[in-house]
Amino acid sequence: MTETLILHEYAASGNCYKVRLTAALLGLPLERREYDIMKGETRTAHFLANVNANGRIPVLQAGERFIPESNAACFYLADGSWLIPEDRFERADMLRWMFWEQYNHEPNVATLRFWHGWIGEANWSELQRVQFPARKAAGEAALALMDEHLRRQDWLVGGGPTLADIALYAYTHVAEGGGFRLSDYPVVEAWLKRVEALPDYVAMSA
Amino acid sequence: MTETLILHEYAASGNCYKVRLTAALLGLPLERREYDIMKGETRTAHFLANVNANGRIPVLQAGERFIPESNAACFYLADGSWLIPEDRFERADMLRWMFWEQYNHEPNVATLRFWHGWIGEANWSELQRVQFPARKAAGEAALALMDEHLRRQDWLVGGGPTLADIALYAYTHVAEGGGFRLSDYPVVEAWLKRVEALPDYVAMSA
Repeated sequence: MTETLILHEYAASGNCYKVRLTAALLGLPLERREYDIMKGETRTAHFLANVNANGRIPVLQAGERFIPESNAACFYLADGSWLIPEDRFERADMLRWMFWEQYNHEPNVATLRFWHGWIGEANWSELQRVQFPARKAAGEAALALMDEHLRRQDWLVGGGPTLADIALYAYTHVAEGGGFRLSDYPVVEAWLKRVEALPDYVAMSA
Repeated sequence: MTETLILHEYAASGNCYKVRLTAALLGLPLERREYDIMKGETRTAHFLANVNANGRIPVLQAGERFIPESNAACFYLADGSWLIPEDRFERADMLRWMFWEQYNHEPNVATLRFWHGWIGEANWSELQRVQFPARKAAGEAALALMDEHLRRQDWLVGGGPTLADIALYAYTHVAEGGGFRLSDYPVVEAWLKRVEALPDYVAMSA
C-alpha cells in the first residue's frame, strides 16, 4: 500500500494491538497516535467528528479515510495477503471466529481485564458486580471452546495462521489480567506459543 | 454454488433472517431446519457435537461443512457477488459496519426485543432489570448513529446495497419490539424502505 497508515489507539487495548500485530506480520509501516481512554480523549467533539462517531479506538486511518472496528482494520491491512485464506469456506470460517471473538470472547475476557486492571474491584458499580458472575462464566466457556477446537488443529482455521488467530490471540494471551487461569487451557497455551513464534511477531508492549 | 445449502435456524431470529435475506437477494436456494431455542434445542448434545459447539443459531451448512455466526454465513453466500464491494476500502468498511452491528447494535436492540417479546418484563431477572437502562441507552445511541450516517448517503457503504445493509436491517426493522421508537429515526426509516424495495427482497415472516 502506498498510502500512509496511521493507527489511532490506546496501546494497552488488545483491540488496538491486533492491528499492530497484523501490520508487523505483513511488514507494513504504521504510525501511531495515542489517546488516553481513561481521560475521555476518544469522546471529544473533535474525535467524534473527525475520527470515529462511535467514540472508540482503534481506528485505522488509510490516507484520508478511517476504518473503525479492530477486525475490519485487520481485514483491510491483510486483504490479499497470506493472513486471509484464498479458499471461500476458510475465508468465511476465519470471519466466523472473528465475529465470535467480538460477541463471545471480547465482552467477557477483555471486559474483565479492564474491570480488574483499570477500574479495580473496590470501585465496581452495582451493575458491574451483578454482571460479573455471568461474564466470568462466559469468558471461561469461550476459552474452553477454543481449547477444545485447537485439540484438532494447530490453527483456528485451515492449516496455517490467519487473522482469526491474531484476533483471538490479542486478549487471550493477557486473559490472566481478567482473572482467568490460562493453565486450565493447556491447548490454548500451546497455540499462544505458536503465534509468538511467527516471524516478525511483536509483543503487545512493543 | 453446487453444494446443498441448509440453514439451521430459529425463524423469528433476526440473525437467521439475515442469512435468508442474503440468499433470497442472490437467488440461492436454501433448505431450512427449525430449532426451538425456547426449548433448548440448540443446546442438545447432538447439536453441540454436530452443528455448533457454541450452541447458537444460525448455522449455515454448505455440503458437509458448517458456518456459525450470521455475518460470516452471509459473507460465505455473498463472496464474489454484488453484495460485497470490489473496492478494498469499501470491503473493509462493510465489515466495519457488520462488526459494529454485532458489538453495538445486536446486544442492545435485539436483546431487548427478546427480553420484551419472548421473556416478558414481568419475568425479568434481577440481572436483566439492572442491565436494562444501559442496554436501552446503547440501543438508542446505535440507532442515532445510523440515522446520522445515513443523512450523508443512501446506503451504509459506498453507492449501493451491501451485506452491511442486510446485517443492520435485520434487527433495526423490528426494533419497535424492543421498545425503540423508529419514528425518532426518520432517516433510518427511509433506508429501511430502500432495503424493502430491493428486487427479490423477502420479509422476515416469509
